[in-house]
Amino acid sequence: MKLVQKRSKKTGLPPGTLVHIGEKKSDKVTITTFHYADGYCEERQLDQPDLLAPPTDESVVWANVGGVHRMDVLESFGKQFGLHALLLEDIANTDQRPKLDDYETYFFLVTKMLTLTERQDVLVEQVSLVLGRNFVLSFQENGTDVFQPVRERLRGGKGRLRQSGADYLFHALIDAIVDHYFAVLEMVGEKIESLQQLVVSDPKPETLREIHALKRQLLFLRRAVWPLRDVMNNLSRSDCPFLQHATKVFFRDVYDHVVQIVDTIETLREMVSASLDIYLSSVSYRLNTVMRVLTVITTIFMPLSFIASIYGMNFEHMPELRSEWGYPMVLGVMAAVGIAMLVVFRNKRWL
Amino acid sequence: MKLVQKRSKKTGLPPGTLVHIGEKKSDKVTITTFHYADGYCEERQLDQPDLLAPPTDESVVWANVGGVHRMDVLESFGKQFGLHALLLEDIANTDQRPKLDDYETYFFLVTKMLTLTERQDVLVEQVSLVLGRNFVLSFQENGTDVFQPVRERLRGGKGRLRQSGADYLFHALIDAIVDHYFAVLEMVGEKIESLQQLVVSDPKPETLREIHALKRQLLFLRRAVWPLRDVMNNLSRSDCPFLQHATKVFFRDVYDHVVQIVDTIETLREMVSASLDIYLSSVSYRLNTVMRVLTVITTIFMPLSFIASIYGMNFEHMPELRSEWGYPMVLGVMAAVGIAMLVVFRNKRWL
Amino acid sequence: MKLVQKRSKKTGLPPGTLVHIGEKKSDKVTITTFHYADGYCEERQLDQPDLLAPPTDESVVWANVGGVHRMDVLESFGKQFGLHALLLEDIANTDQRPKLDDYETYFFLVTKMLTLTERQDVLVEQVSLVLGRNFVLSFQENGTDVFQPVRERLRGGKGRLRQSGADYLFHALIDAIVDHYFAVLEMVGEKIESLQQLVVSDPKPETLREIHALKRQLLFLRRAVWPLRDVMNNLSRSDCPFLQHATKVFFRDVYDHVVQIVDTIETLREMVSASLDIYLSSVSYRLNTVMRVLTVITTIFMPLSFIASIYGMNFEHMPELRSEWGYPMVLGVMAAVGIAMLVVFRNKRWL
Amino acid sequence: MKLVQKRSKKTGLPPGTLVHIGEKKSDKVTITTFHYADGYCEERQLDQPDLLAPPTDESVVWANVGGVHRMDVLESFGKQFGLHALLLEDIANTDQRPKLDDYETYFFLVTKMLTLTERQDVLVEQVSLVLGRNFVLSFQENGTDVFQPVRERLRGGKGRLRQSGADYLFHALIDAIVDHYFAVLEMVGEKIESLQQLVVSDPKPETLREIHALKRQLLFLRRAVWPLRDVMNNLSRSDCPFLQHATKVFFRDVYDHVVQIVDTIETLREMVSASLDIYLSSVSYRLNTVMRVLTVITTIFMPLSFIASIYGMNFEHMPELRSEWGYPMVLGVMAAVGIAMLVVFRNKRWL
Amino acid sequence: MKLVQKRSKKTGLPPGTLVHIGEKKSDKVTITTFHYADGYCEERQLDQPDLLAPPTDESVVWANVGGVHRMDVLESFGKQFGLHALLLEDIANTDQRPKLDDYETYFFLVTKMLTLTERQDVLVEQVSLVLGRNFVLSFQENGTDVFQPVRERLRGGKGRLRQSGADYLFHALIDAIVDHYFAVLEMVGEKIESLQQLVVSDPKPETLREIHALKRQLLFLRRAVWPLRDVMNNLSRSDCPFLQHATKVFFRDVYDHVVQIVDTIETLREMVSASLDIYLSSVSYRLNTVMRVLTVITTIFMPLSFIASIYGMNFEHMPELRSEWGYPMVLGVMAAVGIAMLVVFRNKRWL
Repeated sequence: MKLVQKRSKKTGLPPGTLVHIGEKKSDKVTITTFHYADGYCEERQLDQPDLLAPPTDESVVWANVGGVHRMDVLESFGKQFGLHALLLEDIANTDQRPKLDDYETYFFLVTKMLTLTERQDVLVEQVSLVLGRNFVLSFQENGTDVFQPVRERLRGGKGRLRQSGADYLFHALIDAIVDHYFAVLEMVGEKIESLQQLVVSDPKPETLREIHALKRQLLFLRRAVWPLRDVMNNLSRSDCPFLQHATKVFFRDVYDHVVQIVDTIETLREMVSASLDIYLSSVSYRLNTVMRVLTVITTIFMPLSFIASIYGMNFEHMPELRSEWGYPMVLGVMAAVGIAMLVVFRNKRWL
Repeated sequence: MKLVQKRSKKTGLPPGTLVHIGEKKSDKVTITTFHYADGYCEERQLDQPDLLAPPTDESVVWANVGGVHRMDVLESFGKQFGLHALLLEDIANTDQRPKLDDYETYFFLVTKMLTLTERQDVLVEQVSLVLGRNFVLSFQENGTDVFQPVRERLRGGKGRLRQSGADYLFHALIDAIVDHYFAVLEMVGEKIESLQQLVVSDPKPETLREIHALKRQLLFLRRAVWPLRDVMNNLSRSDCPFLQHATKVFFRDVYDHVVQIVDTIETLREMVSASLDIYLSSVSYRLNTVMRVLTVITTIFMPLSFIASIYGMNFEHMPELRSEWGYPMVLGVMAAVGIAMLVVFRNKRWL
Repeated sequence: MKLVQKRSKKTGLPPGTLVHIGEKKSDKVTITTFHYADGYCEERQLDQPDLLAPPTDESVVWANVGGVHRMDVLESFGKQFGLHALLLEDIANTDQRPKLDDYETYFFLVTKMLTLTERQDVLVEQVSLVLGRNFVLSFQENGTDVFQPVRERLRGGKGRLRQSGADYLFHALIDAIVDHYFAVLEMVGEKIESLQQLVVSDPKPETLREIHALKRQLLFLRRAVWPLRDVMNNLSRSDCPFLQHATKVFFRDVYDHVVQIVDTIETLREMVSASLDIYLSSVSYRLNTVMRVLTVITTIFMPLSFIASIYGMNFEHMPELRSEWGYPMVLGVMAAVGIAMLVVFRNKRWL
Repeated sequence: MKLVQKRSKKTGLPPGTLVHIGEKKSDKVTITTFHYADGYCEERQLDQPDLLAPPTDESVVWANVGGVHRMDVLESFGKQFGLHALLLEDIANTDQRPKLDDYETYFFLVTKMLTLTERQDVLVEQVSLVLGRNFVLSFQENGTDVFQPVRERLRGGKGRLRQSGADYLFHALIDAIVDHYFAVLEMVGEKIESLQQLVVSDPKPETLREIHALKRQLLFLRRAVWPLRDVMNNLSRSDCPFLQHATKVFFRDVYDHVVQIVDTIETLREMVSASLDIYLSSVSYRLNTVMRVLTVITTIFMPLSFIASIYGMNFEHMPELRSEWGYPMVLGVMAAVGIAMLVVFRNKRWL
Repeated sequence: MKLVQKRSKKTGLPPGTLVHIGEKKSDKVTITTFHYADGYCEERQLDQPDLLAPPTDESVVWANVGGVHRMDVLESFGKQFGLHALLLEDIANTDQRPKLDDYETYFFLVTKMLTLTERQDVLVEQVSLVLGRNFVLSFQENGTDVFQPVRERLRGGKGRLRQSGADYLFHALIDAIVDHYFAVLEMVGEKIESLQQLVVSDPKPETLREIHALKRQLLFLRRAVWPLRDVMNNLSRSDCPFLQHATKVFFRDVYDHVVQIVDTIETLREMVSASLDIYLSSVSYRLNTVMRVLTVITTIFMPLSFIASIYGMNFEHMPELRSEWGYPMVLGVMAAVGIAMLVVFRNKRWL
């Protein structure tokens, strides 16, 4: 997750100019289409979007595009479905904030998909969705397969998916994306829980680094999810004619999920901040204990050495030096002073 | 209280699929029903929800379900009362944020119940309430008995409960839940008061741990109560036909309680933060005092030892060494230097 | 000022049940009534609220009750003036947040009265006011006499109080309460000013304790005053028929006072926070100065002692030891080293 | 700038009672009046407001009063222009928050005037303005002359001031007040700039005190300016009949200035906070450097002294003591050890 | 970027007086005009704005002025296009906050242009734009050439620019300005990334200074961009007749960019704050490690020196001194004590 994406190559170009912004992870672009109605479902893999069959009044077309770096593909979709040049530009630019644009004859939704790799890293991928009266277009930055369950439900024909219109499919895709957020949150939550053990038992500079990495990750999560709240709220209250009333309750359901996710992110952020505080006071407490113990040791030996140095003086007239019991008595005094100091320091709990 | 609940087992399932999310604490599900009208009240324990008698126009039915992990029970209720699939899904998922959904012919309210165990731990349990024109359904995660007083009032027939409609029963249940919040807040408040003594008199790392535990607990409390404010506000202003005007003043009363609770939680949070500050400066003050005293001791012995080491030198021509009064004079000088330093340090309040 | 009031004794009781919450400071309940119109004013002390004369269309009745722990008194008022059970419950519960409830035929206002004892402690007392078309009821938790000036104005008959309706009396009572807030703020302001001197000149742990006590006091003040802002704003904009237009400008005046108070509280809070910061850095600066001076002393004696210990070695072949000028030369070298270090440290401003 | 003004002498007085709150700086009250229309302008100094000529339909009267501590002057103005008692009370009370009150036949504006003394101190003075259809009254706390440029423009008759109505004069006065804010901000800005140099190059406790003084000053500035934003916004959007449409664009211009000032104050506050942070870490860095150097010196002499003390032991059988090269060899070892430690510590950058 | 601009030279002047505020970077003022319609484009360099040809109903005139310090030029434009005196004043004053003023027959937009110099410094320049029905005026503080791409598109005649009205040109100019913001953000983002490496690997006071410089830069960026959000939102929702519906979608596009920029700035600010935290704890950790190691060394030599000083005492009766194995045994004990302490300290990880 880079802090700021390279966008400067677009500087000076007129708006609507198609330029891919982001990292190109593979060269291929995959296009999968579903053409379905109640009791009917045709699935195809296309090379060219031109070959796409147009939807009829009763059927729905869903085209899923994996990869947004081939401008000819985007332009071809634009021509076929009458999409605005700015919309195509936004699809090609993977550094978008989640948003919902109402282009009157279709909705345009940009969102971020969060998935976990096998090594528990968070992958962020931009997904753009276009909802028309009887078609849905989905553009994925890399083509990670989170829509598999939706495809299965379409193929199987069970549930209400095939009976419902394009708006319900639109909801199903968003729901599939939002569902994956929970997995990311669970992973982050577990990391924080284990961190909270660590900052008390064994605070190390690496722990600090981990805390800050988590903080940064949560910042990115929040940035990806926060605007989605308004987007889903608008969808569930929109009075657009091709969003059916019965579907809106499902958008409200997704809205509830997003609010829940935002809430959890805020809680996790407070937890990470608390971990940081505990880390700092834990480190400082440990160091202070060490320094105190060391200083106590030094302090105990100071008067003992002083006594010894007194009897190391070379005065001729020092009657103690000649006394037979001088040495053992001085040793005794030293032991007494040392033990007394130990007792005092221990009583004051300085040791 | 886990940071993030395991929700990932639902990933990929279509919305409305019933999956229990949360910990199953017992296997049994208890169903208690009340069928009452003015001057009439029948109470039953059911095994199957199918046996439920439907409410008439004059009577009210209240079914209370303890345990939400048996999907067949939820589905049976759904069929009998015509509940939306998403609503049932929300009941089964105990990781919900408090909310109020208006399904036109019934209201759906999700809230968190907070109770104290005998060991003063806070138990969080999700309670889902459905209010129809003449029925109330309540689904408790575990079935802790906070509704006992309501039952007693129904059985006794005193007060306005049996004379009023389903909306007043609905209010009585919410009121019973909110009443328990105060007990939790009292307990937390007392803990904080005793902590504030402790951080000054005897700050230890365990105190820090306790402060952070309280902070976390308050975070969870806030998360459970905060959304309830809007919920109760909406209820007290709703113009739904089956919420009678006379009942709304009672919802406003509960709203006032919730606002009071939110307010108290914020105050307690500020108190905990202040405790943390005091703890940190108290620990640091104590350590600094110790270090200062130790360093003062060391500093006092430095010149004394230096004087002794001077007369420990082995030069042949050191006239003082031969003087008869050399030894006592040096001792006197040492005592004078030592006492002078003590006096100076004490005057400067370094000791 | 306790953090959380004991409310748990109400748990499980139906709403509208009268239970006194708070500390009972005396057993007696005093009831004072004024029955007045232009050119007429009758004042009485009652034992029983039953004996209250009802107001006529031209006259206004004001009953002031000191003490809210006798439920029979509250109930009697409730019956006579047709007050809602929830309202009576709120009067008896002294742990209320300031609020304004519109019961259509009367307004109900809960507010906190702040007074100073002779020892400059802040006393918080709940005052509940009921405003009807031609009556005002005021319920004070303990009966501290802040309404004395209003009584004098009623008795004297000067000013517009006796000519105006119940709404103006209502305003006069609130104004009397809010006026006392300024005295409390003045006292807190003076304490903070003297604290800001102290944290620089003589920071001690007690200073810290005082800072936190002030912080807590301001928190309670804010909690008492903040909701009053909305209350007064609503009153000054209300279109209720028994609030006359000419009176509303007076409510706006009180609103301005409350905004001023809220503003001052916020400023005082920032000042207290600043004091805390200065205290902490002042304490740390002082300690650091002490440690630096002590360490410098130690550091100066280290090389001196080292030189002495060299000539304390017992080697047979140490030519310096035999030289007649050895001893004074070594003393000279020591003095030179010591003075050089002193000069260097002083130049670097380490001493 | 005191934290809290003495207002308590008003406690218990009925609203509308005229009491001067604030410091009385001089005893005299100066009244200057302008009576003007297009092509005509008469200027007078009055002793008594009674002598004021009333404005005609075509002319405008502006009366400027310096000093608000003479209640008879305020009352005389009140009678002549029909001003509300609360308004006069607000003029006499110099502890007001900036506000705009709409009394239907006139506007009442309270604002704070900030001027710089020659010693770069900020003077705060309350200015109250009353705008009627064809008159403007201005009441200054002390009578500092910021309205001189407006007087010159009136006398000279250039510009649109004499051609326009009372509302434009009203604007000109506010504009003159707001213009002075910029000078105060410039001064504060310069102080902060020089402070930011100081905290790095030479952090001293006085610097800290200066930082906190600036913080406090900015807090007062913000408190004086913040409410003015809403005031000016309301003025520029007001649909009051005696505010002409053409004048509103000038109020919007003042509104822009106030927003700019608020913005700058916020920036300056962040800068001061940053200075505080830099100060603290700069002080701590310096101290730490000192302590590290001192401790390194101590640490280097520890092993050297130890070696010397070994050969200071009085054992009879210590062969080294008799060796002719013992002494120089020990000195050599000491030098080697000392230099080695110096090199190590320097390599580790501890010195 | 100065904290506060010198504005005080305007104090006392009537509004609408033209005074240049800001630094004059060159003396020359350049005026470039484009007069174009579909299929026609005339470009001219003018010395005097008087020579400007007026736009016809079908054509659009764009005049770009580099430099705002010549008042006669501004006045001449004001006369020719009927601009308000306050507008001209705002153009001349380069210390404006971004804003949009609606003067009914034209819009006035003030914005900040951010460009990077070759040495990666941020240049801030004020750009004022006036949009009339068929003309656009742009006033640049210094005349940095960010409008070059727009000029090329006008000359080339490709794209929709020449076919569209003045509103689309207006959009193109704003878009060109906003595009440059991304470059500045990229640079800041890269600086922060490299800083985050540095604070861990090699924290130095200069790093701190750099962090605070970045913080300040981001504060200025935010101040320049934040108000633009509302401006663009208002433009995209305005119902002004000379903003065509088709153009508004482009304004919404710019609005999205600005929101994205604001978002990024907030993220960068949090990153800088995190860097500061890491810097501080990193510096403190390093110092603490050093002090601990040094103190451990001192502590190890304390008992060794003490043992040596015991056998340096001059008692006559010290049997060990005469023993042949006394010396090696004492050396052995010393070695044992030293090694034991080393082992203990290392086990406790104090070394």
